[in-house]
Amino acid sequence: MAFKTDIEIARDAKKKPIQEIGDTLGIPAEHLLPYGHDKAKVSQSFIDSVQDRADGKLILVTAINPTPAGEGKTTTTVGLGDGLNAIGKKAAICIREASLGPNFGMKGGAAGGGHAQVVPMEDMNLHFTGDFHAITSAHSLLSAMIDNHIYWGNEQEIDLRRVSWRRVVDMNDRALRQITTSLGGVANGFPRETGFDITVASEVMAILCLAKNLKDLEQRLGDMIVAYRRDRSPVYCRDIKAEGAMTVLLKDAMQPNLVQTLENNPAFVHGGPFANIAHGCNSVIATTTALKLADYVVTEAGFGADLGAEKFFDIKCRKAGLTPAAVVLVATVRAMKMNGGVAKADLGAENVEAVKAGCANLGRHIENLKGFGVPVVVGINHFAGDTEAEIEAVKAFVAEQGSEAILCKHWADGSAGMTEMATRIAEIADGGSAEFGTLYPDEMGLAEKIETIATRIYRADSAVIDGKIRAQLKEWEDQGYGNLPICMAKTQYSFSTDPAQRGAPTGFTIPVREVRLSAGAGFIVAICGEIMTMPGLPRQPAAETIRLNDEGLIEGLF
Amino acid sequence: MAFKTDIEIARDAKKKPIQEIGDTLGIPAEHLLPYGHDKAKVSQSFIDSVQDRADGKLILVTAINPTPAGEGKTTTTVGLGDGLNAIGKKAAICIREASLGPNFGMKGGAAGGGHAQVVPMEDMNLHFTGDFHAITSAHSLLSAMIDNHIYWGNEQEIDLRRVSWRRVVDMNDRALRQITTSLGGVANGFPRETGFDITVASEVMAILCLAKNLKDLEQRLGDMIVAYRRDRSPVYCRDIKAEGAMTVLLKDAMQPNLVQTLENNPAFVHGGPFANIAHGCNSVIATTTALKLADYVVTEAGFGADLGAEKFFDIKCRKAGLTPAAVVLVATVRAMKMNGGVAKADLGAENVEAVKAGCANLGRHIENLKGFGVPVVVGINHFAGDTEAEIEAVKAFVAEQGSEAILCKHWADGSAGMTEMATRIAEIADGGSAEFGTLYPDEMGLAEKIETIATRIYRADSAVIDGKIRAQLKEWEDQGYGNLPICMAKTQYSFSTDPAQRGAPTGFTIPVREVRLSAGAGFIVAICGEIMTMPGLPRQPAAETIRLNDEGLIEGLF
Repeated sequence: MAFKTDIEIARDAKKKPIQEIGDTLGIPAEHLLPYGHDKAKVSQSFIDSVQDRADGKLILVTAINPTPAGEGKTTTTVGLGDGLNAIGKKAAICIREASLGPNFGMKGGAAGGGHAQVVPMEDMNLHFTGDFHAITSAHSLLSAMIDNHIYWGNEQEIDLRRVSWRRVVDMNDRALRQITTSLGGVANGFPRETGFDITVASEVMAILCLAKNLKDLEQRLGDMIVAYRRDRSPVYCRDIKAEGAMTVLLKDAMQPNLVQTLENNPAFVHGGPFANIAHGCNSVIATTTALKLADYVVTEAGFGADLGAEKFFDIKCRKAGLTPAAVVLVATVRAMKMNGGVAKADLGAENVEAVKAGCANLGRHIENLKGFGVPVVVGINHFAGDTEAEIEAVKAFVAEQGSEAILCKHWADGSAGMTEMATRIAEIADGGSAEFGTLYPDEMGLAEKIETIATRIYRADSAVIDGKIRAQLKEWEDQGYGNLPICMAKTQYSFSTDPAQRGAPTGFTIPVREVRLSAGAGFIVAICGEIMTMPGLPRQPAAETIRLNDEGLIEGLF
Repeated sequence: MAFKTDIEIARDAKKKPIQEIGDTLGIPAEHLLPYGHDKAKVSQSFIDSVQDRADGKLILVTAINPTPAGEGKTTTTVGLGDGLNAIGKKAAICIREASLGPNFGMKGGAAGGGHAQVVPMEDMNLHFTGDFHAITSAHSLLSAMIDNHIYWGNEQEIDLRRVSWRRVVDMNDRALRQITTSLGGVANGFPRETGFDITVASEVMAILCLAKNLKDLEQRLGDMIVAYRRDRSPVYCRDIKAEGAMTVLLKDAMQPNLVQTLENNPAFVHGGPFANIAHGCNSVIATTTALKLADYVVTEAGFGADLGAEKFFDIKCRKAGLTPAAVVLVATVRAMKMNGGVAKADLGAENVEAVKAGCANLGRHIENLKGFGVPVVVGINHFAGDTEAEIEAVKAFVAEQGSEAILCKHWADGSAGMTEMATRIAEIADGGSAEFGTLYPDEMGLAEKIETIATRIYRADSAVIDGKIRAQLKEWEDQGYGNLPICMAKTQYSFSTDPAQRGAPTGFTIPVREVRLSAGAGFIVAICGEIMTMPGLPRQPAAETIRLNDEGLIEGLF
């Protein structure tokens, strides 16, 4: 029997009308704003109407440091949601939207995989419900208004050399990374250097994903720093009077999107901030809405647990007042082997010793997650080639850490492969043993917060923060930004800043190259390594082979 | 009694679910892809299924040269559609979509006005169904792929100085008119000068509006010229292998949008190309689909009849094989007065002599339109201050031209104010007296085509085409583009190239400054005057006061 590809499975899905999916969560049809027959936005007025309800249980799916072998975090999120529904629980999942641009470079990503996917896959990899276009528009409006403000007299006395607000486009376009604008004479304004980032790197994206409602959104947009004056005082978006019109552009985008899994269970897919210079989680409004409508909400965070889960806890949960009830930490036998030194080409052969050696990475993540006071279950995402002995080696290691590991076969079997994990997670969530706490209090100094993450989560000897950066942090503290959490921008491949250092490295430091204030999103970005905010296309971009075939089906996107 | 504003009337509309509107045209609910409850796209498969049906009658609404007094072309289009339905005919209207960016400069436009509007007005002035975002994405993908092609070795040997494909954004952003890209070193490519236009100026927009179906769309996208080599040979979009992925990005945007008038009659709102460097009409696919579903289809063309109607006939009708049955030429007493020399501030006072003097502009348009073989009825769009004597003066003038003028009170009364016009237009259309013919044959030389438009439509003494431009036209003829129609880019305020020359000027020439080949759209643009393809924002952009109020309603957009 030949295996079907993800896209073949997705196209075979027996989708239900989105109104039926909404109905399972008690959303009346008039409060679902349809986009085609299989996507809808949940109306703001309905969201407002359920605010007094009790919250369901929040479950985070995170992972070990990613390896080229693939871990299957989204697949596990989808599988666990389906698994919970299959054992009779009312569950929903919350995941991020995909960025359009990168799909034309490398082949587009499925939302999940195998028999644990969210559909319609094509739409989710193209325009979906237009949220990212709305973010691009809102961002672009502010960009145009800043240069327009300067053009018509620059009443705010913006220093042309210090316009920090760049432009964005949802496309991998390296030629736009660094540009000179307003050339061509008087009518086109004052020439200056600037550039474009990809839309998901926009602070507007981070804000949309952290805002509680439209009022909060407008407030945060107004709080964004867009430039500085010659006296170094900040110029806010509010000074340019753009936040009202930006909110109007974003009013539909703020409403969470509802779609379905292959098993017709509800999936909220909303927002998609960068996981390095931003916090990498789906929107707060999707998560809090799902918690009002379902008894269990399964969500995920970007990258490995050192970055993703830490930001989920210390940024998203802190700001939205969320209290996760359980964590599933996804690992694979293959990834353990790679962490244990096996090359990708050799992953097919049984190698129990390598699995054991590679478990150190897993162990450190378990320890870290427990530190947040949330019970952890390791989900072993099963691959066909895994041997019994290898799986047992992982289970034994996890047991030694005082935790438990459960084999998950959702990729091959859907919810049927997830019964054990779903049952256990429901039990833990219902047990109420979680005592969630953030890693550091709001009051801690900014530099100390960075050091705390570096030493307690990454296990570095220290964070290296030079005098200039410390002075900058101090200045922000003096301006009242000292209570903000830190958003670390670091490689996702290692606890350290060296992507090659797999496993559980020690004896390293975390050098902070640069810090940035995202005053609207409400965090300080600490950049520790090369961060690319505008990708390029490869030599043979996927776009060259993407087309509609004679049946009207998309080829080459997946 | 205080008059309600357009937006107040629009918000009071008793909208029907879009499925009910589709039902009046026989579109099954499963073939309407809803966007919210009041907008939908008509599925491509349904469109394919009705191709064997007979066509309804096509009625064009055009106008005299616009004046600051306002003519109400769209209002008349909507009113006539409602009027036809009110007298028991099955009618639909086809109009253009609005561009997002300009709404943040000046206040956004209603689609129609008074009691002759299309709703939902807010959505139509914001993201609507995302068509323009899809066009921006498709355009941006090609832009990125061109620079990426150069970056990875430039196999096509593109001359960096001769990349004619620019970038687009749907925003008024003068700072992007002229820029230098790929600065910052090796990783960002080869620096070159380029710039952004507003999305509606994209050739992709013109193509979407002229393509018969997705296959035709892909073919035309591939045909676009994006650059030239050092030997001056053209590099096509096809050489960059972008047309397939662009088509995928545009597959939903190609499906026409269905909304409704205030009187719950069907309105197709689809596409919106510039009316100067492009042809300024709604999409061919919307018009041809409407003709299969309704007995009468009322549509409009951009600017006055000298530009809009001429391009409608010579570009859109020629390419799509459309045969219009009647034309309504919109005029107002106020516009006649302005053409007759009255200042805007003095329009309130009766001035029959000025009306008579201003009728020359109207007369020339009537004559021109008759030249296309289509019966013309003048629609006098009634304003409250018009006097009986003024109206009679217009009617008498039109009668002298051998045509007829009918007073239209749709702005105040909706369809009830349009009964006479609707009855007469249906009679004319049913009478089959039209013998439509284009102004010039395909085989005519390109320079001669330009001269023909200039002398026979504008009534210039001649078109001034210098040797360099004639050589360019000759080169295109040699390359096989000689059969293309001409798309004139000229001021809309006068028959001449001087916007101040109202009325029916004579004794002028039409200087052609530049010609451009839109090889995908399939026309040659002749630029006669300053054409701005990227607007700027005004000193006090509308965006500064646009916001959501406490009831969640948009303020400041209208």
